[in-house]
Amino acid sequence: MSGYQLSESKSIAMMKLLALCFFAISLISIPIAEARIRHYKWELKYEYKSPDCYKKLVITINGRTPGPTILAQQNDTVIVEVKNSLLTENTAIHWHGIRQIGTPWFDGTEGVTQCPILPGDTFVYKFVVDRPGTYLYHAHYGMQRESGLYGSIRVALPDGESEPFAYDYDRSIILNDWFHKSTYEQAAGLSSIPFQWVGEPQSLLIQGKGRFDCSAANPPMKADVCNNTNPECSLYSTTVVPGKTYRLRISSLTALSALSFQIEGHNMTVVEADGHYVEPFVVKNLFIYSGETYSVLVKTDQDPSRNYWATTNVVSRNATTPPGLAIFNYYPNHPRRSPPTIPPSGPMWNDIEPRFNQSVAIKARRGHIYPPPATSDRVIVLLNTQNRVNGNVRWSVNNVSLNIPHTPYLIALKENLLRTFSQTPPPEGYDFKNYDIFPVQNNTNGTTSDAIYRLQLNSTVDIILQNANTMNPNNSETHPWHLHGHDFWILGYGKGKFDPINDPKKYNLVDPIMKNTVPVHPFGWTALRFKADNPGVWAFHCHIESHFFLGMGVVFEEGIERVGKLPSSIMGCGQTKHLLKP
Amino acid sequence: MSGYQLSESKSIAMMKLLALCFFAISLISIPIAEARIRHYKWELKYEYKSPDCYKKLVITINGRTPGPTILAQQNDTVIVEVKNSLLTENTAIHWHGIRQIGTPWFDGTEGVTQCPILPGDTFVYKFVVDRPGTYLYHAHYGMQRESGLYGSIRVALPDGESEPFAYDYDRSIILNDWFHKSTYEQAAGLSSIPFQWVGEPQSLLIQGKGRFDCSAANPPMKADVCNNTNPECSLYSTTVVPGKTYRLRISSLTALSALSFQIEGHNMTVVEADGHYVEPFVVKNLFIYSGETYSVLVKTDQDPSRNYWATTNVVSRNATTPPGLAIFNYYPNHPRRSPPTIPPSGPMWNDIEPRFNQSVAIKARRGHIYPPPATSDRVIVLLNTQNRVNGNVRWSVNNVSLNIPHTPYLIALKENLLRTFSQTPPPEGYDFKNYDIFPVQNNTNGTTSDAIYRLQLNSTVDIILQNANTMNPNNSETHPWHLHGHDFWILGYGKGKFDPINDPKKYNLVDPIMKNTVPVHPFGWTALRFKADNPGVWAFHCHIESHFFLGMGVVFEEGIERVGKLPSSIMGCGQTKHLLKP
Repeated sequence: MSGYQLSESKSIAMMKLLALCFFAISLISIPIAEARIRHYKWELKYEYKSPDCYKKLVITINGRTPGPTILAQQNDTVIVEVKNSLLTENTAIHWHGIRQIGTPWFDGTEGVTQCPILPGDTFVYKFVVDRPGTYLYHAHYGMQRESGLYGSIRVALPDGESEPFAYDYDRSIILNDWFHKSTYEQAAGLSSIPFQWVGEPQSLLIQGKGRFDCSAANPPMKADVCNNTNPECSLYSTTVVPGKTYRLRISSLTALSALSFQIEGHNMTVVEADGHYVEPFVVKNLFIYSGETYSVLVKTDQDPSRNYWATTNVVSRNATTPPGLAIFNYYPNHPRRSPPTIPPSGPMWNDIEPRFNQSVAIKARRGHIYPPPATSDRVIVLLNTQNRVNGNVRWSVNNVSLNIPHTPYLIALKENLLRTFSQTPPPEGYDFKNYDIFPVQNNTNGTTSDAIYRLQLNSTVDIILQNANTMNPNNSETHPWHLHGHDFWILGYGKGKFDPINDPKKYNLVDPIMKNTVPVHPFGWTALRFKADNPGVWAFHCHIESHFFLGMGVVFEEGIERVGKLPSSIMGCGQTKHLLKP
Repeated sequence: MSGYQLSESKSIAMMKLLALCFFAISLISIPIAEARIRHYKWELKYEYKSPDCYKKLVITINGRTPGPTILAQQNDTVIVEVKNSLLTENTAIHWHGIRQIGTPWFDGTEGVTQCPILPGDTFVYKFVVDRPGTYLYHAHYGMQRESGLYGSIRVALPDGESEPFAYDYDRSIILNDWFHKSTYEQAAGLSSIPFQWVGEPQSLLIQGKGRFDCSAANPPMKADVCNNTNPECSLYSTTVVPGKTYRLRISSLTALSALSFQIEGHNMTVVEADGHYVEPFVVKNLFIYSGETYSVLVKTDQDPSRNYWATTNVVSRNATTPPGLAIFNYYPNHPRRSPPTIPPSGPMWNDIEPRFNQSVAIKARRGHIYPPPATSDRVIVLLNTQNRVNGNVRWSVNNVSLNIPHTPYLIALKENLLRTFSQTPPPEGYDFKNYDIFPVQNNTNGTTSDAIYRLQLNSTVDIILQNANTMNPNNSETHPWHLHGHDFWILGYGKGKFDPINDPKKYNLVDPIMKNTVPVHPFGWTALRFKADNPGVWAFHCHIESHFFLGMGVVFEEGIERVGKLPSSIMGCGQTKHLLKP
């Protein structure tokens, strides 16, 4: 008995010890396995910088443009304290590709989800990054993004999980176009009568660096304004080790330009788009539109005794902008050593075919397919046109040009300030039968409006983006449309006018890629499907800065009644002042 | 009895009739005698303008800079609806010289009396102009005034009352200096390490017009940027009829420059300063500092067969800025006909004596003297210095450089948000015994602060402005100090260090002028007295835009408990969001 008791007490003690050990182990492993908080403190300032050798005021984050890269793991909570030190200018920062599930008030879209952040104020964004992948952040206020307020978000898989592709190193490269005029000058020109077009960008930046030819400037510039020996505008150089595989996360935040990106002598295998795995395919030129992100795998399998050019070119516009250059530096060559070759020329700017084909080639990766609902509850057709409204040149959707109000929709809807915007629903389509998309159209019925589309929560919505001619003959532009708060399935691309009877039969419902940004090609259409399952108010707009500024966007509301209590930090503008205590 | 009764009832009837008549007369005269409402609707925009032939973005009011002149009569209520269409930039408008009695929340001083007005918002200013005279309005936010947001306020006497001087015509002329760089570029330079000084202005404007020599620009400018044939920069010309007396209301809103103003061949008799009648005195050159207004009488008694130059020159700084020119056009000569003479050269820039003498010459007009209290309850000495604080060049008062907070003081004090600024009182003086104002000083104890001076309501306060050397040897600048919400008596000016024992004995307590803006001359002092009788929170600061931006100011509070309910329109920034309904 006593032996048994002893044994039992011994085994209990053993179990207790084991339990304690497991508990201790669990304590140790908690910081690894559980989501973490990633805390950033940013100060936004105007500073003189020379990203392409021309000195101008830019908006910096902690002294830098592009700003710091946000690094996190899936399910981490990202907290960014944004101190606005921009003197007299407000700001708001959008976390591009982050769906903000449960935190629609932190989407960072001025006029839609928040009041702007005032000078002197510190605004705290707090959101969960719920999926791995490559995302972006940038100003979402006026045309402020162009001032240099942008950067990368890289969300890794949780520890122990791995991507469906292998690589040795991981790099982020943002492509951008760059204007020498301030965003104030550009925006004032766009809003003026007569219209003053901002023109083509002066240069293209690769990871924040470009090169404007100061000596060719006319009229000439002083050396303190433009100086090609300024180290700030030394070309971006990324060092690679021969015989390895690199994951390059290529993204574009151009104000205007559609781009092609290439690395001399190297193939690129596309494996990710906007945070979704792509069934791999190989390209020489990666076409990329503003707001898109891609991961490509590059093998450093070329002659290691030299460096190679990485270049980016404008496509889709007959731009005067010279190509952007960077150095793909094979270790141990000097990172600034020029490749011995002439940089490769990019594809023809006006050849739509390869761009269209790349769009069609992007499918969800096998084993990572999220099939779309087989049918949709609602189809909204959005005709993209450029037209004149009240004497101003505007971009419109179904002949309605969006005016973002200054009482944010999210607050207006949640707090019943419904007089702050039109309650007449915007059109679900255009005059399909009679509208010819190929000639220049008068569009005399063009209007501006701040009305929005209200969607049934959890309904499935199809969007048909229909391109058309601009106000210039034989001209149709590429518009990259970006949806906030959701990813959509891309069901199909087409040329000419979308046929509502026959084209849906060709939709890819098997392995469509999900994205948050998609181009509609010149004179073409793009069909999307998404589930309106994220309570909030969400912008859907052309990601070309001047196009959105001139009204090329719509706004969706869904499940406003399910939105939680709004934080007071997003308040303070327009009619939200009426929410002040009496 | 009945006769008496009859007579009595008759006389009562007569009296009733008379009363009725008086009542009827009073009814008729009410619209004439009673104060009226002057209603203005303004839209602020960025537009390209060429005030001095160089094209740049300026802030316009209803398309103009300077903005519309506000015309009113004493005791009228002025309502200005300001719509901010500045894209991403806020604004606030100060009504310079208007005391805002009972409406301290409409003083228009960002950070002191209100939150800024956000883009898209319309803010309604409503205040009584309680005294006749010449006043101004301008942006009071960051360095925004320099962008062109300014104009005149002219308050006439009530009908039937007349000025103590006679004139035939009345004209307003604002003088200004003009920079080609944007206020963003200037402000960013001022806040940067190393300090980038904005430099001297490119031109002087007379009533919004100047002339920069485009052909002399180096590097050369394109004709679409600078064009001397642009009608926007034709010289300002004011047409006068020979043999008349003109009241010219001359005011200055320069960002930096102290000015001299003269009309070739004509004397000017000074009769008004900052809304107060001046014992008349004659000048050839009127010295005028930023924030000051004067009325001068000019007789058109010269050869009427020609035009005359009106010119303005920089004084007190060794500026490269050419004189500003305008045409004093004798009818019927053509208003654009150049005078046959060379424009008169202004006074020597570094001759302080005549400027000092003009200051001393300005006394209250006999019959219009408001004697000051014989003694004061409190004396605050404010040492004016330039120093380095935390690596930045700053301007300081008693070695404290003001940081305007972004929760306005008025709201913070009224609503008990006292954590928004330091509750440690700022210093009442400096180390009088040991501080030598003549050499460059280290001022190693310099700090920034947002603390304010709290004054006893209805107490009498003396302010001694004490000038000193800047950070450059043998250099002391002229600072025009402007007080919000009050006029002050100018008790005296002196040279060197103010002597607290002997100088007060020489105070002018007999006929001191009252003003709202006063210079402190290089290496000199100025003594002021005012009654703290206007419940509210009021800025007192150097009116040079870059000096105030760099901290040269203080803030007074008085009678906060007597301030009425604050309008919600001034809220929305900083900690005022905590006043939102839970």
